Amino acid sequence: MASIDLNADLGEGFGRWRLTDDEQLLSVVTSANVACGFHAGDAATMRRVCELAAERGVRIGAQVSYRDLAGFGRRAMDVPSAELTAEVAYQIGALEVFARAAGSRVSYVKPHGALYNRVVHDEEQAGAVVAGVLLADPTLPVLGLPGSRLLTLAGQAGLPAVTEAFADRAYTDQGTLVPRDRDGAVVTEPQAVVARSVDLALHGTVTALSGSRIEVRARSLCLHGDTPGAVDLARRVRERLEASGVRVEAFV
Amino acid sequence: MASIDLNADLGEGFGRWRLTDDEQLLSVVTSANVACGFHAGDAATMRRVCELAAERGVRIGAQVSYRDLAGFGRRAMDVPSAELTAEVAYQIGALEVFARAAGSRVSYVKPHGALYNRVVHDEEQAGAVVAGVLLADPTLPVLGLPGSRLLTLAGQAGLPAVTEAFADRAYTDQGTLVPRDRDGAVVTEPQAVVARSVDLALHGTVTALSGSRIEVRARSLCLHGDTPGAVDLARRVRERLEASGVRVEAFV
Amino acid sequence: MASIDLNADLGEGFGRWRLTDDEQLLSVVTSANVACGFHAGDAATMRRVCELAAERGVRIGAQVSYRDLAGFGRRAMDVPSAELTAEVAYQIGALEVFARAAGSRVSYVKPHGALYNRVVHDEEQAGAVVAGVLLADPTLPVLGLPGSRLLTLAGQAGLPAVTEAFADRAYTDQGTLVPRDRDGAVVTEPQAVVARSVDLALHGTVTALSGSRIEVRARSLCLHGDTPGAVDLARRVRERLEASGVRVEAFV
Amino acid sequence: MASIDLNADLGEGFGRWRLTDDEQLLSVVTSANVACGFHAGDAATMRRVCELAAERGVRIGAQVSYRDLAGFGRRAMDVPSAELTAEVAYQIGALEVFARAAGSRVSYVKPHGALYNRVVHDEEQAGAVVAGVLLADPTLPVLGLPGSRLLTLAGQAGLPAVTEAFADRAYTDQGTLVPRDRDGAVVTEPQAVVARSVDLALHGTVTALSGSRIEVRARSLCLHGDTPGAVDLARRVRERLEASGVRVEAFV
Repeated sequence: MASIDLNADLGEGFGRWRLTDDEQLLSVVTSANVACGFHAGDAATMRRVCELAAERGVRIGAQVSYRDLAGFGRRAMDVPSAELTAEVAYQIGALEVFARAAGSRVSYVKPHGALYNRVVHDEEQAGAVVAGVLLADPTLPVLGLPGSRLLTLAGQAGLPAVTEAFADRAYTDQGTLVPRDRDGAVVTEPQAVVARSVDLALHGTVTALSGSRIEVRARSLCLHGDTPGAVDLARRVRERLEASGVRVEAFV
Repeated sequence: MASIDLNADLGEGFGRWRLTDDEQLLSVVTSANVACGFHAGDAATMRRVCELAAERGVRIGAQVSYRDLAGFGRRAMDVPSAELTAEVAYQIGALEVFARAAGSRVSYVKPHGALYNRVVHDEEQAGAVVAGVLLADPTLPVLGLPGSRLLTLAGQAGLPAVTEAFADRAYTDQGTLVPRDRDGAVVTEPQAVVARSVDLALHGTVTALSGSRIEVRARSLCLHGDTPGAVDLARRVRERLEASGVRVEAFV
Repeated sequence: MASIDLNADLGEGFGRWRLTDDEQLLSVVTSANVACGFHAGDAATMRRVCELAAERGVRIGAQVSYRDLAGFGRRAMDVPSAELTAEVAYQIGALEVFARAAGSRVSYVKPHGALYNRVVHDEEQAGAVVAGVLLADPTLPVLGLPGSRLLTLAGQAGLPAVTEAFADRAYTDQGTLVPRDRDGAVVTEPQAVVARSVDLALHGTVTALSGSRIEVRARSLCLHGDTPGAVDLARRVRERLEASGVRVEAFV
Repeated sequence: MASIDLNADLGEGFGRWRLTDDEQLLSVVTSANVACGFHAGDAATMRRVCELAAERGVRIGAQVSYRDLAGFGRRAMDVPSAELTAEVAYQIGALEVFARAAGSRVSYVKPHGALYNRVVHDEEQAGAVVAGVLLADPTLPVLGLPGSRLLTLAGQAGLPAVTEAFADRAYTDQGTLVPRDRDGAVVTEPQAVVARSVDLALHGTVTALSGSRIEVRARSLCLHGDTPGAVDLARRVRERLEASGVRVEAFV
């Protein structure tokens, strides 16, 4: 029986500001990428999201980022390796307190935004992130793109490397994401997103932008929760997956 | 045989800026109050200080603060309890990663600056700090002023409450610190500081500002490391303590 | 003919986060209290709000705050006078660039959140804010509560002191605001808010919490824009004021 | 008679932390690049430096930076143009308040650190900086490297483009700076720095790393003030320049 994990970014407010509908998303996903204070996520929100996640049996992951509240972690930064490594470990440790206090633990690490994109190709920063994870916990899985430098280096370092796919993003024939600034990069039609989710979970395939069918092996699907209708769509994805005989469960 | 712990604030730079002579201070003290990023202390510095402390067998404490880089944590803030609790836990967790990675652990918590002063009297904030420590680790000692609300509430919550004294601060007849803005509040003469240190460690007494001899029971002496000559003075204090037959050792 | 100014807080997002419906509010108010980056308000948002305000002939005011993004400027802080003065001037200067570039100028200053409340009574901080305004522009009006230390000191320093009232807040018999944590402190019924607005603008009176009628002289009414329905309510207030023969116009 | 401007970075502390010896440097330089709060420079320091500079007739320049206190503005960031433009203008405006209050004004703009290096080649960011300067004041000179995109675009936009040279940096035969990570990139021998300063100011030439003599036309020399001995060296440079018949004076 096919199984898939559903992950989403949570706790992405800061102080007075809210972004993600944490409560609703936690009733859909199996893995919660919790913001750790560097691009979003104040300490009180981190605590609350961890409590809610633990109550519902949702896995807690550290969504680590560049230190960039003003840019929401979406601006690539040339952070020296030693600093990046320490900053990644710092964020994991901060989240671990709340996960433990809620009776759970940090179960994986996923980079956010510009850092996520950078470590697909950037050897140095990918290595720095892996070093940060190792510093915090040398058994922690890392979640990222198939074929990314991050997952390759994580695997070489003995960390479980977990792949994810995006049902709402277009793929090239080579199985990479079509850059966001290209036409058709984002799949907006809800029904298409649902169908692609089932395709990815059940068959490990998806229709590329060119129309050809390609293979994309992923143990997790990333759902988005920061747009209107996002929670509804996430819920429909989960329902259709289960109706299609896919077991929705965390990868750890 | 009398014994005393020597503690000092460390890692109080941020990024490009340095303040404390961490390397030198770590050859003198037995407990290092490491800044955790809220008033000072970038992640890379936290890592380095933890490594040096672990190498030298110096205990690592979390020096938790209000979130206030611009004011160095010296501006009292009316932080709501739930936020303060979460922020204290966040800082402890972040430091724990580096302490563990260095083969040590966070062994105690000490509030910094304005928060330190506030929790002497403020019931609500003292309770919030204690709650933050409990969230992180319900066995963690708390370091503070004898008679402070912080230590009272910590003790009631089952946390070891550890008292400290200041050889370079004047005391009232009631055993409280003379406020810094009063004449004679700070003892600047090195020889006096050394003599008072021995007095405190050996006899648990000190000469108050009025000239009367008072009792001040402390398991730790706080040394300062951010002024010229501070490290030399700290070294002299330690030497004289040892020459006087006091065992200088961490309280945990 | 009676006239009244309507002011509201604008531009209170930060980076990825939005809070106030700036576009809609600018079609209602005559004075925009623009966040200047210390509690909210990134530079690009400040620029955009200034451009929109200038287009619509809405006056631009500097909504100055403690430096506290995490607490949205709602946590009272003991900032030393010299720092507070410089921080107030800094914020005014930063906003002035965008106001000028849009063909307008900073026309007044209004403290935000905890600073607003603090300078009602706190002589030192009120003086520091006034000094900051003087540093930036010794002709700049200051907007605040009638009877506040801020307005008294502003007046003594030669700055125009402009009073404001709150149609959605309960008043004591002495004409001060009922603290938010007291029952009945906030008037939530829209019709009541509209009626009180007219009462304040037309007669300079309002019904206190006790039921007695009191005098509250204000040249401006503060409208809130950060809650659902807030913009609609603001629009109704303006319509009813105009229908009642009150001229709605900026105080400068 | 040859003339040259001497510029240096000032006010590069933040809150409790100090870096530059502002008082001493202001007795040497003719142009002060004042940090504006994004990589360093709290508001109170900005005020004080402006007052000192105005007293001594030293020109005040806005040293604008990426928003990056943790990295001291030394980490290149992919900031979208609209944000960078607004952030540059914001910084200039904030500094202008203090310059005006001190009886002076912001007389030029110079990017700091990673932004300085980026706008040598990066068309988009160079354009964004120029747009930010135009927003603040369309007559403001921009200080930078000869041949940089920044100066080219500034000139095209009608802003005075002012060139600077570094007596303590090695040059390639093409007149560009040897990257810092290359051997011999930095000239550390004080006497050599002094001699090169005179050479640059008097003849517009300097000896390249290869040994060949090249032309470097600069209206300003950049002196460094954040290392031990820096102030002494700066003073010697100025003395030797004057003894060599060079008039040391601001470029505006």
